[in-house]
Amino acid sequence: MSMNTFGHLFRVTTWGESHGPALGATVDGCPPGVPVDEAMLQSWLDKRKPGQNKFTTQRREPDAVRILSGVFEGQTTGTPVQLMIENTDQRSKDYGEIAEKFRPGHADITYWQKYGIRDYRGGGRSSARETAARVAAGGLARAALAELAPGIEITGYMVQMGPHGIDRARVDLAEVGRNPFWCPNAEAAETWAEYLGELRKSGDSVGAVIEVTARGVPAGLGAPIYGKLDTDLAAAAMSINAVKAVEIGEGMAAAALRGSENADEIRMGPDGPVYNSNHAGGILGGISTGQEIVLRFAVKPTSSILTPRHTITKSGEDTEIVTKGRHDPCVGIRAVPVGEAMVACVLLDHLLLHRGQTGGNRGVIG
Amino acid sequence: MSMNTFGHLFRVTTWGESHGPALGATVDGCPPGVPVDEAMLQSWLDKRKPGQNKFTTQRREPDAVRILSGVFEGQTTGTPVQLMIENTDQRSKDYGEIAEKFRPGHADITYWQKYGIRDYRGGGRSSARETAARVAAGGLARAALAELAPGIEITGYMVQMGPHGIDRARVDLAEVGRNPFWCPNAEAAETWAEYLGELRKSGDSVGAVIEVTARGVPAGLGAPIYGKLDTDLAAAAMSINAVKAVEIGEGMAAAALRGSENADEIRMGPDGPVYNSNHAGGILGGISTGQEIVLRFAVKPTSSILTPRHTITKSGEDTEIVTKGRHDPCVGIRAVPVGEAMVACVLLDHLLLHRGQTGGNRGVIG
Amino acid sequence: MSMNTFGHLFRVTTWGESHGPALGATVDGCPPGVPVDEAMLQSWLDKRKPGQNKFTTQRREPDAVRILSGVFEGQTTGTPVQLMIENTDQRSKDYGEIAEKFRPGHADITYWQKYGIRDYRGGGRSSARETAARVAAGGLARAALAELAPGIEITGYMVQMGPHGIDRARVDLAEVGRNPFWCPNAEAAETWAEYLGELRKSGDSVGAVIEVTARGVPAGLGAPIYGKLDTDLAAAAMSINAVKAVEIGEGMAAAALRGSENADEIRMGPDGPVYNSNHAGGILGGISTGQEIVLRFAVKPTSSILTPRHTITKSGEDTEIVTKGRHDPCVGIRAVPVGEAMVACVLLDHLLLHRGQTGGNRGVIG
Amino acid sequence: MSMNTFGHLFRVTTWGESHGPALGATVDGCPPGVPVDEAMLQSWLDKRKPGQNKFTTQRREPDAVRILSGVFEGQTTGTPVQLMIENTDQRSKDYGEIAEKFRPGHADITYWQKYGIRDYRGGGRSSARETAARVAAGGLARAALAELAPGIEITGYMVQMGPHGIDRARVDLAEVGRNPFWCPNAEAAETWAEYLGELRKSGDSVGAVIEVTARGVPAGLGAPIYGKLDTDLAAAAMSINAVKAVEIGEGMAAAALRGSENADEIRMGPDGPVYNSNHAGGILGGISTGQEIVLRFAVKPTSSILTPRHTITKSGEDTEIVTKGRHDPCVGIRAVPVGEAMVACVLLDHLLLHRGQTGGNRGVIG
Repeated sequence: MSMNTFGHLFRVTTWGESHGPALGATVDGCPPGVPVDEAMLQSWLDKRKPGQNKFTTQRREPDAVRILSGVFEGQTTGTPVQLMIENTDQRSKDYGEIAEKFRPGHADITYWQKYGIRDYRGGGRSSARETAARVAAGGLARAALAELAPGIEITGYMVQMGPHGIDRARVDLAEVGRNPFWCPNAEAAETWAEYLGELRKSGDSVGAVIEVTARGVPAGLGAPIYGKLDTDLAAAAMSINAVKAVEIGEGMAAAALRGSENADEIRMGPDGPVYNSNHAGGILGGISTGQEIVLRFAVKPTSSILTPRHTITKSGEDTEIVTKGRHDPCVGIRAVPVGEAMVACVLLDHLLLHRGQTGGNRGVIG
Repeated sequence: MSMNTFGHLFRVTTWGESHGPALGATVDGCPPGVPVDEAMLQSWLDKRKPGQNKFTTQRREPDAVRILSGVFEGQTTGTPVQLMIENTDQRSKDYGEIAEKFRPGHADITYWQKYGIRDYRGGGRSSARETAARVAAGGLARAALAELAPGIEITGYMVQMGPHGIDRARVDLAEVGRNPFWCPNAEAAETWAEYLGELRKSGDSVGAVIEVTARGVPAGLGAPIYGKLDTDLAAAAMSINAVKAVEIGEGMAAAALRGSENADEIRMGPDGPVYNSNHAGGILGGISTGQEIVLRFAVKPTSSILTPRHTITKSGEDTEIVTKGRHDPCVGIRAVPVGEAMVACVLLDHLLLHRGQTGGNRGVIG
Repeated sequence: MSMNTFGHLFRVTTWGESHGPALGATVDGCPPGVPVDEAMLQSWLDKRKPGQNKFTTQRREPDAVRILSGVFEGQTTGTPVQLMIENTDQRSKDYGEIAEKFRPGHADITYWQKYGIRDYRGGGRSSARETAARVAAGGLARAALAELAPGIEITGYMVQMGPHGIDRARVDLAEVGRNPFWCPNAEAAETWAEYLGELRKSGDSVGAVIEVTARGVPAGLGAPIYGKLDTDLAAAAMSINAVKAVEIGEGMAAAALRGSENADEIRMGPDGPVYNSNHAGGILGGISTGQEIVLRFAVKPTSSILTPRHTITKSGEDTEIVTKGRHDPCVGIRAVPVGEAMVACVLLDHLLLHRGQTGGNRGVIG
Repeated sequence: MSMNTFGHLFRVTTWGESHGPALGATVDGCPPGVPVDEAMLQSWLDKRKPGQNKFTTQRREPDAVRILSGVFEGQTTGTPVQLMIENTDQRSKDYGEIAEKFRPGHADITYWQKYGIRDYRGGGRSSARETAARVAAGGLARAALAELAPGIEITGYMVQMGPHGIDRARVDLAEVGRNPFWCPNAEAAETWAEYLGELRKSGDSVGAVIEVTARGVPAGLGAPIYGKLDTDLAAAAMSINAVKAVEIGEGMAAAALRGSENADEIRMGPDGPVYNSNHAGGILGGISTGQEIVLRFAVKPTSSILTPRHTITKSGEDTEIVTKGRHDPCVGIRAVPVGEAMVACVLLDHLLLHRGQTGGNRGVIG
């Protein structure tokens, strides 16, 4: 119900603005007895941290996470975990102009129309900084998954930057950590570096497509009709700033397929059912099959750019705006760890829901 | 929280299986005083009803909806509205074989693994028949919208059938009702008729892309962060059977755009802000801009086909299956009114939420 | 969130009015594989059914429950269970006068003020007939509890009728089914029969106190802070028509105790902790101790009485009203099975929540 | 759904333990444009603050509240408000013994059994310190109510301490602030002072009954069946530490009344309906009547007392415990501002819900 909360049993409520004193996540429903500490959570936050190379915003935030509650002697207690990240490098003076003008492509105008008040400093609540809180919560979810379903591996990477895509055959997960783009292909990473460098210099930005996969997810997670695993993954991804599209498995391409091509045939393997393909992206009828879960989402180009744009003021006058702040030329890069975090939260939530309703998988095959 | 419920304040819980005695929707939170009767709801259900032409399943269901509660002397009372549709033409004998075998591309195997029991008759709970209940609830949502925000027009149509797409420039809404495909282009409709006729004879099926637009939606609907209007639209669309992808505005194509191309510029019009383009699909920061809302979703091809497919039995033996029942060669056709219904429910829900939290738009421009 | 729903994972949404075509309960989140049939549910409904003796309303309703979904071959499937009860003996003509006048002590005036429309026939949505749906849902909850926690026994009885109370020392559960009042003491039952007979003849009514106990509840159900077991029991009881107070364990009497009297001392028994007393009513810190859970609630006297009462009309004129319909002189009698049903729903819900979050009790003693 | 959250649209999630670094409340759904600052919130917290006189715990906490988000230039923005209170005077050494022993009457044993881990320092999550976060959130709710429904006045006071009660005729609200017990009668306050002084010296504690009234609440707040105003008030009160009973209006005493005594007669006044009495406590059918809302709850005696008590250790051995810490001899005293805060939160929540679903009262009388 809550507008700033996601999840059913494992519930994450994020709070905070870009330039307020702090932001964070209130996490309720975490299983007890999960080993967790600040250093472990920090390792995930560091993946998302701004200012790490010339391709992300030069704002320098340590993004140091503190655990304020719900953890005792290194383990979760089952009570709410408060994860707080203080803002330290706000430089509010950069944002003077946007107090009166609405930046095209931003939430400035809609927040104003809805609420009649907005914290314009750095985008306030609508800033991508909010995603730091998600990454912290995702770190906690990963720790819980490691206890409850140790085989699960969640991996995110970028499969398209602007016009430059990578097809699935060229994906090499070993490359993902070796370049600043979470790009799973060494050659593409070089192309992207050159492309993005030019773009940044020109004061422009570009969109991206992120893919997040989860291997080792047990069959049986999810539920009809609105509690579908893919429904919750879609909502989780679409709730990330700047995301405009979400795909599961074949995604949009499924529209062009025939039934004889698309439905994944099944055969019996040594340890249970095996599928001859994975067009479904690991989900049938909203419930996981045990195959790899494949989620993709498109991130629009950063709207804060140095190119002048037509807009209006609060008092209704036509004007132009140039957004000078410190912005990501491709905000999709930092969306990779955010996408992973959201997938971790959704999977843990559905593990708990499944255990709650059914006690664990009930139907045996063979 | 509930697995079969969607919505926050206007909440729809659907129930029922394909071959049980009945199915329906329990609708809670509807505003009082909304004029509604069975004939009006029926008109929406008739758009979705099977057996209307050779391109949809030949199962003949009257899909007659009954209002069992929450309406008094022709108006909603503000208490739960129960909408029931009895099943009359089940022919369960068609489905004997699938009691023991799992149909590829269906929820048969995942429901079995999760629950250890499944109503295999016609797919049980996972049947697309469940969407009749959504259309009934959507009819109620439309009636409420007509009272609260009379200018809203919600229109769905198919923009791609298999490999045959229609670009936005060729969309003519006047054509939508003139062909069996909700196709917004007369020429395309002819191509599709020929294409789908062939496919049906060959015992195969095909996917589709549906677009639903909403005009006249006031600015200010939606909320950060998980209560975003696009988050809820994505979840609503992804919860429809066979949907594998969801797009808002530019959708996946946003990834290939530069910021200078994508962000919609604003100028002042006679009645408020006007945008020079609508790449955003009417939503910024999760909140409606007042522009046309544009939602698209991809429906995978029907998995129930006459072509033999490899699969396994409950006892774990490899086998083949041919699904004989009466199925849609392109289930996307009947997804059009379902998509419209979901959009109506989401918009009404957010209108009520917005009114609840803010009392109506608070920020004036100009 | 939903106004007509209770429960977190085992969620019951009731719908329907006193004089509409039907009423019922949509139950989502039931565990799969629970044996259930209409006859079993009916046995619980028959306990609450009106017209069984001269001390309850003479309206004659068979209250026949039908299972419309969620059960296949005698077992729950894990999908929503729809339980419908058709109304057959409405006699709407009895209620002509109350269309224009507000009955004192009834929801007539508040529903009108809130919604501007009300189904006045028999109280519409606010009628105690709604509780039939709760009893049906409670029957399902009991069946699930019998599978998951077979030792739980839930027993309701009346401990006070008007001024005539029974203290705990005189409670004999064997008597409960032997009189029309669910009275746990044979002598008191006779006093009550005489008292209520007089009262009924005089056209008046009286209140009651109901106690519901649950034995065999495992320790560990409940949670901080708003998910406390006693919080949910209090809400469940207070949601029953005409209930004005709720007590756990000592209840109001706890105010007069000293800490040295009230806190239940603990010692080690052969199978775990044993308590020397049960002032807590089986719940500490919102979590069950394993002792008997003790819930009490007060039901106000039926407001529909034959005595003339001052009131006003819809048009704001002072007038008098005599409510002629067929009413219970002590509506508390029929609240007994309703209270049991609510306790069953709450306990099942918390069993599922506990299993979901923790997987079962984690802390061993000794 | 969330275990540590209350409210539907105005949602408060509390977090934190007695001896952790901080505790607080994450408040989502607050209307925008509400003037609020830390000093105003602090004034409510100061009412509840420990160590103010010899009748409350001698722990000295400044209970200084900080607003970390959701407020900009002195007004709420409509996004989540984070209210944090740092713990400064924990003295964990006081609690060494309780790491191994379970205090009777406390949540120690049930938290351990459920979670297998507990922050035993000062009761951890189950400490009454958690209520500081509620009072902070209640301060925000009051500020919002002052904007939306300026006439509402919420007043709490103690009507019974141990065996010493005050009947309604002797209640003088002007006295409430003049004594350390929120006692609405000067004479009773003296009796209580003497009584509690003796009790404290003897190392014992005692229970209390608190009454909270709300005047000026508009008719129409609340809803059927589980969204009843009294249901939510009962849940809110029962969720407070140590509360064992909740009453609305006549409460338990309603059981002894006849219908002709209990139902409040209505007549037409100059500004609308007027009632001749208020046995209902301002709520009919779960919806406010416009009369004064009357809520009472019983607080059990503090279980942490200096008297030795039988208990067991984690390893299952019988032992004795004396709880030495710094505890309230009558924890009910500090429950007064907490009860007020909960009522404020519930009323605001229902105001928003009512506005959301209906737009405001729809039925006119006269």
